[in-house]
Amino acid sequence: MISESAIKTIKESIRNIPDFPVKGIQFKDITTAIQQPLLLQMIVDQMADHYRKNRITKVVAIESRGFITGGALAYRLGAGFVPVRKPGKLPSQTYSKTYDLEYGQDALEIHQDALQPDDVVLLHDDLLATGGTAMAALDLIGRFNIRQAYCSFIIELDFLKGRQKLSPPFDVTSIVHF
Amino acid sequence: MISESAIKTIKESIRNIPDFPVKGIQFKDITTAIQQPLLLQMIVDQMADHYRKNRITKVVAIESRGFITGGALAYRLGAGFVPVRKPGKLPSQTYSKTYDLEYGQDALEIHQDALQPDDVVLLHDDLLATGGTAMAALDLIGRFNIRQAYCSFIIELDFLKGRQKLSPPFDVTSIVHF
Repeated sequence: MISESAIKTIKESIRNIPDFPVKGIQFKDITTAIQQPLLLQMIVDQMADHYRKNRITKVVAIESRGFITGGALAYRLGAGFVPVRKPGKLPSQTYSKTYDLEYGQDALEIHQDALQPDDVVLLHDDLLATGGTAMAALDLIGRFNIRQAYCSFIIELDFLKGRQKLSPPFDVTSIVHF
Repeated sequence: MISESAIKTIKESIRNIPDFPVKGIQFKDITTAIQQPLLLQMIVDQMADHYRKNRITKVVAIESRGFITGGALAYRLGAGFVPVRKPGKLPSQTYSKTYDLEYGQDALEIHQDALQPDDVVLLHDDLLATGGTAMAALDLIGRFNIRQAYCSFIIELDFLKGRQKLSPPFDVTSIVHF
């Protein structure tokens, strides 16, 4: 496990962008963290160390920012990588899940041959906010009747209570909390 | 370096999807490769081993598929990760490059604080086709007057001759050729 001071360093390296993408949102920009080699290593190692004992077989990551640290995490854990993408992006047969946004709807897709029943899955995204996107991804993962799913985020916006939407039965961990 | 038989295994694991995203295109689907733990390891290790001696300080990867193996590659090389994204996705000040597609135009952006003059950059994407996207990304990287840039792809479509568009002066490597 990394120290409290390392977590503080990661947290301080995340840039806050007011009113992005829309007015009133305080956007958490991880690019200022992951462009620093040591911080990228710490973030990925922290997540990988936490799940080492769980024998993860697939990291399922959400497009697009989730792909960056999700790819590194799959590599580090010796797991396979499975993308969850926006509609029409995955080229083969998919399962699709539509979910509600504050205004309107969005959807996510996963390849129908992406997971097997004996997989142990780690869902990954950069940010847990209201939990809507993560819940849609967990719904897709649920179609495969897999053994177990865990959820890993770099950042969790505690005041939006997304974690409560995801648990039980999902184990949720985040490195940095706002 | 991995063996010829390992490269053959990677190549055979890439799924061909006819007429995606439009009629006449033979889409190369890497999801069937990277969902296999051993193949993901081989792909990332092959790229990392090739560039180990070049002391890469930043991996610059192109949204979205380039983020997956680009993130793992940055982690493996001990480099920072820098995303090149579609317009409007990066939250801070960006440089932008518009480029021509077969029909119409597209654009890519990079954060203005993403690179420093002493960086040694490895540009990464999953696929080198005509080279238009990679050239746009290299144009963005060029704004920073960095020391050196290399280009790494998982797949190269040799018959489209994208490599010729990129070199000289760029060093280009791909694991699998079609």
